[in-house]
Amino acid sequence: MSSRLTEALTVVSQAVNSELDRLLPVSESPDSRVHEAMRYSTLDGGKRLRPFLVMQSASLFNVAESAAIRVACAIEMIHCYSLVHDDLPCMDDDDLRRGRPTCHKAFDEATALLAGDALLTKAFEVLVNPATHADPAVRCELVADLAHASGGQGMVGGQMIDLQAHTLDLDVAGITRLQQLKTGRLFSFSCEAGAVLGKAHGELRLALRNYAHDLGLAFQIADDILDVEGDVAEVGKRLNKDADAGKATFVSLLGLERAKSQADMLAEQACRHLDPFGEKADLMRDVARFVVRRRS
Amino acid sequence: MSSRLTEALTVVSQAVNSELDRLLPVSESPDSRVHEAMRYSTLDGGKRLRPFLVMQSASLFNVAESAAIRVACAIEMIHCYSLVHDDLPCMDDDDLRRGRPTCHKAFDEATALLAGDALLTKAFEVLVNPATHADPAVRCELVADLAHASGGQGMVGGQMIDLQAHTLDLDVAGITRLQQLKTGRLFSFSCEAGAVLGKAHGELRLALRNYAHDLGLAFQIADDILDVEGDVAEVGKRLNKDADAGKATFVSLLGLERAKSQADMLAEQACRHLDPFGEKADLMRDVARFVVRRRS
Repeated sequence: MSSRLTEALTVVSQAVNSELDRLLPVSESPDSRVHEAMRYSTLDGGKRLRPFLVMQSASLFNVAESAAIRVACAIEMIHCYSLVHDDLPCMDDDDLRRGRPTCHKAFDEATALLAGDALLTKAFEVLVNPATHADPAVRCELVADLAHASGGQGMVGGQMIDLQAHTLDLDVAGITRLQQLKTGRLFSFSCEAGAVLGKAHGELRLALRNYAHDLGLAFQIADDILDVEGDVAEVGKRLNKDADAGKATFVSLLGLERAKSQADMLAEQACRHLDPFGEKADLMRDVARFVVRRRS
Repeated sequence: MSSRLTEALTVVSQAVNSELDRLLPVSESPDSRVHEAMRYSTLDGGKRLRPFLVMQSASLFNVAESAAIRVACAIEMIHCYSLVHDDLPCMDDDDLRRGRPTCHKAFDEATALLAGDALLTKAFEVLVNPATHADPAVRCELVADLAHASGGQGMVGGQMIDLQAHTLDLDVAGITRLQQLKTGRLFSFSCEAGAVLGKAHGELRLALRNYAHDLGLAFQIADDILDVEGDVAEVGKRLNKDADAGKATFVSLLGLERAKSQADMLAEQACRHLDPFGEKADLMRDVARFVVRRRS
């Protein structure tokens, strides 16, 4: 990872942690257990890639950081809720996440279920608050976009296909669609959020959408490669899950070498979509190159 | 139940069913499984009390039915998602809901989990759509109110307390707080939604809030009574759950007779809050009297 990207990711990660800490509820009464589980599942961990993309895309349109950070937290809440629910025994049944016990291991299944529900709900509450943007029409657009990206026709729809993937005999087009729903949509939301906050439409927004498309796919291919080549201590979660479950992946379909060159090609293509932004988008280019080289 | 209430509930119930059918996704691809589970859990069933309250409160402010019905569907989606998640093995572990197999019995646990997540998300997508209200500020207010009512400091917070209730030795004040969070907040949202749509603030909105407060409590006390006195075939779900789980209820704390008179008193008090609306609120008064007399 380029040292300027490392530095910038650290800065965003710290800002997101402190804003999440401020936004998430605390209480003294018995409902505090769900609030603790929400904090456990969101604070201290993760690369904060989606929040970083929100902050970077917002900076392209000179959006105030205090607004962008709220959108960054909202998308991270959605991402984290999906991980908490995905780790439950009835889904992936994972014990380890970001190198720590998963939420239902640290608490219990019911608390994890509720913490996920509460994080999902909180994301919309954060977006719709006037502190996110003075214009309610912009807040409505953010809520609509995030709901569409994460719901039954977005991320959750992708999770549904994923659950059935071992029976579906998916080809590259099928896996691509699955991944575009499951992870691509949230990347797109993150990359376009800056344009929404900056009320930019047309060509510049389309450029970000195209960047997000290629980035998301490159990210997922790299994930499949990591699943085969990664080190469990570095990655911080169970590996070889898909192969063990008999699911097709980009690696199983393309082979390791072609998967790698495909990921590299997509990363370069993602960078080129950012041409209209010039140097201002250099960190987003760094992200594209980083996701295909990461070890975790 | 008064025959005019029966009739009015039937009309709303049909309208809500057909609007839900229109709003919920359908697809041909493998994600259709989660869409089917969303439909299974929301269509054909339930008294639609919360939607009815939305429609009635909206009629007090001459809000267009086409707008109110969308809010009615959104609140029903939230209510149904909470039932789907509540019925899961790690929560209440129920096999029967509205006289049919619960969602995870009809499908499977993972699909039920995702269907709940997707319904929750869809509720916000419906609220924030311009078809709900021309003014984005009103849509933002609806999203903020529903998120607050249903999230970790509302309904989900109440569910969290409920999960621990058998260890908490709650008194009447504790049970009241639990129920106000778990069921009261959604009733309040439903009753105030009309005022939000009609941009009414001040005294009239307060009157609806007070009505909702007493109605919600009366509803819950009646629920505890049904849990003891009800017939499983009529009620359509497992009974005696709270007593079996060693949880305090209004009935266990007050005794059956005092619980009944308390519920009646609250229903009458709820009706009186509606005085400012005159005869226009008669159906809402009927609802208050119905909830304490219902057999299911």
